[in-house]
Amino acid sequence: MLSEADRVRIARYRPQSGMATPRFSGLASFMRLPVLDPSEAPGRIDIGLVGIPFDGATTNRPGARLGPRGVREASTGTRARNAATGVAPYELAACADLGDVPVNPIDVAATARAIEAHYRPLADARIVPLSIGGDHFVTYPVLRALGNAHPVGLIHIDAHGDTDDGQYDGTRLTHGTPFRRAIEDGVLDPRRMVQIGLRGSTDSADELDWALAQGVQIVPMEAVIDRGLPAVLAEARAVVGTAPTYLSFDIDALDPAYAPGTGTPEMGGFTSREALQIVRGLRGLDLIGADVVEVAPPLDPAGVTALTGATLAFEILCLLAEAVDTRRAGMEGD
Amino acid sequence: MLSEADRVRIARYRPQSGMATPRFSGLASFMRLPVLDPSEAPGRIDIGLVGIPFDGATTNRPGARLGPRGVREASTGTRARNAATGVAPYELAACADLGDVPVNPIDVAATARAIEAHYRPLADARIVPLSIGGDHFVTYPVLRALGNAHPVGLIHIDAHGDTDDGQYDGTRLTHGTPFRRAIEDGVLDPRRMVQIGLRGSTDSADELDWALAQGVQIVPMEAVIDRGLPAVLAEARAVVGTAPTYLSFDIDALDPAYAPGTGTPEMGGFTSREALQIVRGLRGLDLIGADVVEVAPPLDPAGVTALTGATLAFEILCLLAEAVDTRRAGMEGD
Amino acid sequence: MLSEADRVRIARYRPQSGMATPRFSGLASFMRLPVLDPSEAPGRIDIGLVGIPFDGATTNRPGARLGPRGVREASTGTRARNAATGVAPYELAACADLGDVPVNPIDVAATARAIEAHYRPLADARIVPLSIGGDHFVTYPVLRALGNAHPVGLIHIDAHGDTDDGQYDGTRLTHGTPFRRAIEDGVLDPRRMVQIGLRGSTDSADELDWALAQGVQIVPMEAVIDRGLPAVLAEARAVVGTAPTYLSFDIDALDPAYAPGTGTPEMGGFTSREALQIVRGLRGLDLIGADVVEVAPPLDPAGVTALTGATLAFEILCLLAEAVDTRRAGMEGD
Amino acid sequence: MLSEADRVRIARYRPQSGMATPRFSGLASFMRLPVLDPSEAPGRIDIGLVGIPFDGATTNRPGARLGPRGVREASTGTRARNAATGVAPYELAACADLGDVPVNPIDVAATARAIEAHYRPLADARIVPLSIGGDHFVTYPVLRALGNAHPVGLIHIDAHGDTDDGQYDGTRLTHGTPFRRAIEDGVLDPRRMVQIGLRGSTDSADELDWALAQGVQIVPMEAVIDRGLPAVLAEARAVVGTAPTYLSFDIDALDPAYAPGTGTPEMGGFTSREALQIVRGLRGLDLIGADVVEVAPPLDPAGVTALTGATLAFEILCLLAEAVDTRRAGMEGD
Amino acid sequence: MLSEADRVRIARYRPQSGMATPRFSGLASFMRLPVLDPSEAPGRIDIGLVGIPFDGATTNRPGARLGPRGVREASTGTRARNAATGVAPYELAACADLGDVPVNPIDVAATARAIEAHYRPLADARIVPLSIGGDHFVTYPVLRALGNAHPVGLIHIDAHGDTDDGQYDGTRLTHGTPFRRAIEDGVLDPRRMVQIGLRGSTDSADELDWALAQGVQIVPMEAVIDRGLPAVLAEARAVVGTAPTYLSFDIDALDPAYAPGTGTPEMGGFTSREALQIVRGLRGLDLIGADVVEVAPPLDPAGVTALTGATLAFEILCLLAEAVDTRRAGMEGD
Amino acid sequence: MLSEADRVRIARYRPQSGMATPRFSGLASFMRLPVLDPSEAPGRIDIGLVGIPFDGATTNRPGARLGPRGVREASTGTRARNAATGVAPYELAACADLGDVPVNPIDVAATARAIEAHYRPLADARIVPLSIGGDHFVTYPVLRALGNAHPVGLIHIDAHGDTDDGQYDGTRLTHGTPFRRAIEDGVLDPRRMVQIGLRGSTDSADELDWALAQGVQIVPMEAVIDRGLPAVLAEARAVVGTAPTYLSFDIDALDPAYAPGTGTPEMGGFTSREALQIVRGLRGLDLIGADVVEVAPPLDPAGVTALTGATLAFEILCLLAEAVDTRRAGMEGD
Repeated sequence: MLSEADRVRIARYRPQSGMATPRFSGLASFMRLPVLDPSEAPGRIDIGLVGIPFDGATTNRPGARLGPRGVREASTGTRARNAATGVAPYELAACADLGDVPVNPIDVAATARAIEAHYRPLADARIVPLSIGGDHFVTYPVLRALGNAHPVGLIHIDAHGDTDDGQYDGTRLTHGTPFRRAIEDGVLDPRRMVQIGLRGSTDSADELDWALAQGVQIVPMEAVIDRGLPAVLAEARAVVGTAPTYLSFDIDALDPAYAPGTGTPEMGGFTSREALQIVRGLRGLDLIGADVVEVAPPLDPAGVTALTGATLAFEILCLLAEAVDTRRAGMEGD
Repeated sequence: MLSEADRVRIARYRPQSGMATPRFSGLASFMRLPVLDPSEAPGRIDIGLVGIPFDGATTNRPGARLGPRGVREASTGTRARNAATGVAPYELAACADLGDVPVNPIDVAATARAIEAHYRPLADARIVPLSIGGDHFVTYPVLRALGNAHPVGLIHIDAHGDTDDGQYDGTRLTHGTPFRRAIEDGVLDPRRMVQIGLRGSTDSADELDWALAQGVQIVPMEAVIDRGLPAVLAEARAVVGTAPTYLSFDIDALDPAYAPGTGTPEMGGFTSREALQIVRGLRGLDLIGADVVEVAPPLDPAGVTALTGATLAFEILCLLAEAVDTRRAGMEGD
Repeated sequence: MLSEADRVRIARYRPQSGMATPRFSGLASFMRLPVLDPSEAPGRIDIGLVGIPFDGATTNRPGARLGPRGVREASTGTRARNAATGVAPYELAACADLGDVPVNPIDVAATARAIEAHYRPLADARIVPLSIGGDHFVTYPVLRALGNAHPVGLIHIDAHGDTDDGQYDGTRLTHGTPFRRAIEDGVLDPRRMVQIGLRGSTDSADELDWALAQGVQIVPMEAVIDRGLPAVLAEARAVVGTAPTYLSFDIDALDPAYAPGTGTPEMGGFTSREALQIVRGLRGLDLIGADVVEVAPPLDPAGVTALTGATLAFEILCLLAEAVDTRRAGMEGD
Repeated sequence: MLSEADRVRIARYRPQSGMATPRFSGLASFMRLPVLDPSEAPGRIDIGLVGIPFDGATTNRPGARLGPRGVREASTGTRARNAATGVAPYELAACADLGDVPVNPIDVAATARAIEAHYRPLADARIVPLSIGGDHFVTYPVLRALGNAHPVGLIHIDAHGDTDDGQYDGTRLTHGTPFRRAIEDGVLDPRRMVQIGLRGSTDSADELDWALAQGVQIVPMEAVIDRGLPAVLAEARAVVGTAPTYLSFDIDALDPAYAPGTGTPEMGGFTSREALQIVRGLRGLDLIGADVVEVAPPLDPAGVTALTGATLAFEILCLLAEAVDTRRAGMEGD
Repeated sequence: MLSEADRVRIARYRPQSGMATPRFSGLASFMRLPVLDPSEAPGRIDIGLVGIPFDGATTNRPGARLGPRGVREASTGTRARNAATGVAPYELAACADLGDVPVNPIDVAATARAIEAHYRPLADARIVPLSIGGDHFVTYPVLRALGNAHPVGLIHIDAHGDTDDGQYDGTRLTHGTPFRRAIEDGVLDPRRMVQIGLRGSTDSADELDWALAQGVQIVPMEAVIDRGLPAVLAEARAVVGTAPTYLSFDIDALDPAYAPGTGTPEMGGFTSREALQIVRGLRGLDLIGADVVEVAPPLDPAGVTALTGATLAFEILCLLAEAVDTRRAGMEGD
Repeated sequence: MLSEADRVRIARYRPQSGMATPRFSGLASFMRLPVLDPSEAPGRIDIGLVGIPFDGATTNRPGARLGPRGVREASTGTRARNAATGVAPYELAACADLGDVPVNPIDVAATARAIEAHYRPLADARIVPLSIGGDHFVTYPVLRALGNAHPVGLIHIDAHGDTDDGQYDGTRLTHGTPFRRAIEDGVLDPRRMVQIGLRGSTDSADELDWALAQGVQIVPMEAVIDRGLPAVLAEARAVVGTAPTYLSFDIDALDPAYAPGTGTPEMGGFTSREALQIVRGLRGLDLIGADVVEVAPPLDPAGVTALTGATLAFEILCLLAEAVDTRRAGMEGD
């Protein structure tokens, strides 16, 4: 049960309803939520939606820097309650749009530092970040901030493993390397990490050997099809267990028919219903952060990808709100 | 068996074949059918395809007013015979394109009156209307015309329930309210009404309570997935029974990957094969009218939505033609 | 010279610079300006940018309801200073994004009332509104608020006259009638009104007779070409004189090559350079408000129309800032 | 002066007005005109709008076969009266949409025969054809029908000369050869032929020598810029004189910014205002037919090209209606 | 085991890796493979990728002539190894991009001769062609070259049967007739031919009777759904047996959501995962050639269709490389 | 006069003609020219077309990394001879497509080094590079290679000055700084540098002061309009004089209607005819290299920008070929 103080606090951060003003009206904030400067967030909110408009680590087609803006616009179509699960996130947790990280589109290393510095105070204040990328590189500095004290577990939904060592003779900070860097830095626990949906052609037979050697669980798309999603999700839950876990959802996990607007689409991905099934199948985990990355609006004139990214962000927000609620209950129960 | 008179009459209304002239040639009428003024339809045709180019009741993104034109163009690709079911609709019923209802894009109430007035003579002449919207509001005045004498049953395929009471402090005629209005007016029987495919986030927990209280059967998408389409369709058939029934197909029932061109897309919808399975699963009902609504061509640069809308219109036309044939046989048998 | 108090006040409302954070980052407010609730605007700001996301009076292709959102996004590319004229608007006047008017997309009359009620307090507080439509109907209620005490003059740049009496047998509130209604209501002075750029085919020979009879000056596109823009602009300035004047810029004044994203494009319009020449040619007028209307982003996949609308909004903002500065100087000089 | 009989006859063929029903409603016929089977045209109408959906002679990017459908849709935005010239074509001549020629998309020669056979009865009945292509090859068989008795003069607006002898080792019927074939066949008088707007790179220095040797007047774009359109149009009028003349307008004469939807765009073309100036500058010629060709809608997602093609078709229709009126007056004066 | 000579030879034809230079850099050859003139291919390569940019036999929407260029560009995203099957094609067979067949876009018969003449030397040199269309007509002359000595078997994945006799009163070479012509010519063995995925409406009830009478196995989409893909693939393998077989994949076999960029899309097709399942289910057949046809890039602004076509081409290439390897082993084993 | 040896050498490098094979066929090399490895270029060719697919220095919307591929495809529509000037470049100079520079999309500094290293051997061999970007940053390392011995003059056509010192607190290598860096490095002579077409809003009043202080001539768009292009071009020619000069053409110099596909479009730019007039107005200069940059195909679904970029590249190629010819004649004359 929420304390009265929490109830009052949380009620201050409701999204505008489409029953009162049209969803296409007003500035496009994430979910039509109030906008708050990150410096004012501690003590006020539980979950912060943050844009990271950076695609400077992209080795393929760019455009994901426009992801936060595209997802904000599409997210104004989400409403207050998850009809499938019954979760009403804005009644469980105070949520706000914290704006974007001040990135440097030219400089990967500087941006990595800026992201980490931006998330540290949020982590310190136990504000759960839901980040919208940006390319997948941005997850690395976020994990550095969140896993600073203890390495986190990871559920990673993606077409690609993103555990390369580098490209072009030594470029080590790319959107293909974030998880390798995070593991090397000790902020991500590879034995509590599972990757789901990997597919497509690969550069070499041993592309995933490093990750496997670290203890990462990899479930390629073919295995998902063979074993079925329920079994895969059960395994994923077992891998990360009850300890703090991060969820990273690369939109290219979906099939290009469902998410054409991404830099490196791979034929044969998840359907939108499977994507929903995955997110809903992760209820109850101790999630301490999440992201949706690689939405590149210029590559999708019909806007389906931003819609999908925004809907997944809402579904993940429901997970995070439940986790916030559970942790609060746990603390209160102590 | 068709009477010779009927056979001759029906044979006058054949679509042009693509084997003789290319499907991209000639004016785009629905299915390349002959065009007839509605005033000339009684006594001549059994099924009238009617455009209702109105989206003035749309509370989200507009564009469905261009639906009839987009579906007409795409429908020129349909041919004479349903390969899956074997039905040859133009041999069972005389069909024609009756043009568009003269709508007023600025005035919902005036358009509602115009639509109802347009459909009354068709209903009086027992011409079965297959309408192409337009936003979903247009179904309300059509039901007023068709259910005037006796309330009709309804099979409603949609992502949204469309049984709201209103929006914006009292606007009661919107594309979110048609079925509430029709039930209130006594032209739609809620106990013979089933809604399939509802999903997405909702504004409140009790959004569907009013409909449930009226006796409407609601099968959300999650229930469809759990129970399977065959069971759901069997239930739907049981709900509407053998009495006169209307079929309303909102294109946003399909997933945005299959129908991006619609004002309020919702992730996680039907695939195109499921949509076909639904329509084909309704053979044998006593259908007295149908519509396909919410196709908004400007929102889909690849044109998939209009193609899907046109194909579903053809499949529904096959249902209607069989219903016409069955009723004629019944009358002749009397 | 600005007073120190004004200087300090004005300096609070600077747009974010693209030299510090990328222009594609952060929430998209008009010009990257601070966002302010209208109720807090009096005493704080001089010019308010307001979105009016309404296209419910459109008789042709819809989409302008998405104009404010599209223009906001494109406007983040404008910078602090007009390189052509040297005007630095944010040093002359305090400017803010006041959000959108709470429109009702279904109800023209209710929206007209809402707009007028929204602008009255701004007018009372002498805050100059720069509105982004929406269809051209929205100018009518804005003029009702601004011309309430004294009828205003008007410079009207458009492909269409918008002085029809109505359509469809008596619908009098459409995007083709705003100026007729405003003249009838006595809030717009037809003898201080000039229309520039009218063209295209017309329904009848006497379409413009009513306006001419009221004393409106009409300069069709052919006359612009014959006489040259400098002469036309000189005439326009003479018509409106030194009294309070409103500027209404319909984006369809531009040629479809420059502004394809609009509901009723007409071949043969202004180039973008001519549009800039027009706006810059209106410096020094006593402008008390302005708008840019009919930008319909879904109809322009390349986004040129929103870019053009945003740039024109910035150029008009420069005019308004100078007018604010001049009036302030005048008052101080008294 | 029109005879009473002509007045009554002509009044039967009025386009539907957008003041009564929205322009986006109803089947898309050319200009919202009545549709008539060609066999019923003689004695009833003066001008027939005919679609020729053929692009099987295209050596570059295809898509012009969809031109008639795209132009029909866009043409529903034209109204009854030319505001610039004051011409009201539907009061001068009975006009109708005669549908499309039954082309064979695979077979150039068969289509050439079909087109010629289709236009012969129209020519015999002195019905003036306004054709919408299709690629430029279609002009050749039209000229064969119209110039059968006496070779016609030609005003040819285009980026390309289309007087090649052939391509690919002997293919002589392509969209690059229609005028060479027509001159060889004696149905087009090269000394009464003028080409305006030619530009772009060429395959060889002597590409135009054959045409020049036949006496064709060629005014490349550079000469248009140097000499000015008025001088060029005066020369064009002098070349064709007072004898029967055909007008062929290839949409690629316009710059790609104004007409991107065409198979072989060439940078540096006419603006839309110049295109209007050209057509309006041809008033008074004895025009006996015209066409607008090479509109390829799939190559222009914003639809500007079809809009431009439709507007030019309306402007040309005004020319043709005046010519019909003049000839009728001349006959009556005899 | 590969001989050392073969290993050295094969190693000369590796695609450029995206780990060294970005996949968007460099000229777009198929799979980033070396480009070779066909005359130099014999003795050097085992598999030749050939573009056939011809859509002059298309009876519906055109654009497939731009297929080779679109697929080349998208194919630069494929990598060296099939992660699902483990096949590394470039280690099994020497592959190169042999450029395009010199087609004549105007002349079907001439192009048929050109294609056949182009493939004869490849067939003579036992180079396995993987062709990228182009419309489906192009398969006919390819089969004439490959089946010249002995009629081949065929696995045909498509929405349409393409065994029509002709259209438009006698046009016999269209994209609807290639397999009828090939059977008539004796280069395709109908008893070793299976068609999978046929669907959509048809012109007549007996459209497929001719094919059935020849002994062709037809598995319409409804049968695929009923029986499941594994059973259908097992049957297909049984039909073609161990003799030389050709694989023809029409991209319109996929649902329009997965492949909107094709001239004649049909609702209700294969998903991308099923398409992969089909191709991977054909491992071990004695494939002597294959094609992917009907990709029409201008009809798909998001580029999903070309991506899908390129990925299927890579998957098929894996099949062909294994077949080459198997045949080489067989010969060496002799 | 060309020596016989040169004539033979040059004749080896002819583009394929569209009269023999369709322009949409074959691999898309620049202008359909032969492809040559840069290492083989010295002694063989005079002019090398080089792609630089890098947009990692872009501070606004990305996409220019796909410019070389887009321009290559569009350039296949250019032919052998400039019809306006009569120049036949492939008869004056041996031209080839030298492929792309191996860039690192993540690392600006590494890419700068790679570009410079790539161009040094070309400069040493007196091969004139015509580069296709990529964002405008790429011009800086090219100038470092070409101006290594002696600083070059520059004609710079652009909407932006690109002489910023940096952004984001010290990032000095961006697409806004190339010319400042080149001047600082002594490879570009600011007193022989002219910038034409600058416009749009600016961040500060003194944005261009540094450039002016170095002696750069700046002709903003307003000055171009006032003074006329001929006068501006005469001044430009005077500024650079007869010494070696580089031409850099940023596609955003054109108005967004003519070039929507670019990262930072600015309303009010050059028309395509003016762009041609500019390039043609630079004949006779001692050009030693040139580039066309900032074409971003994903931002232009109609493809006009790539077409314009390709046509300008051809026109510039004509300038370069004449310069090569003149220099050769000069050397021979010594």
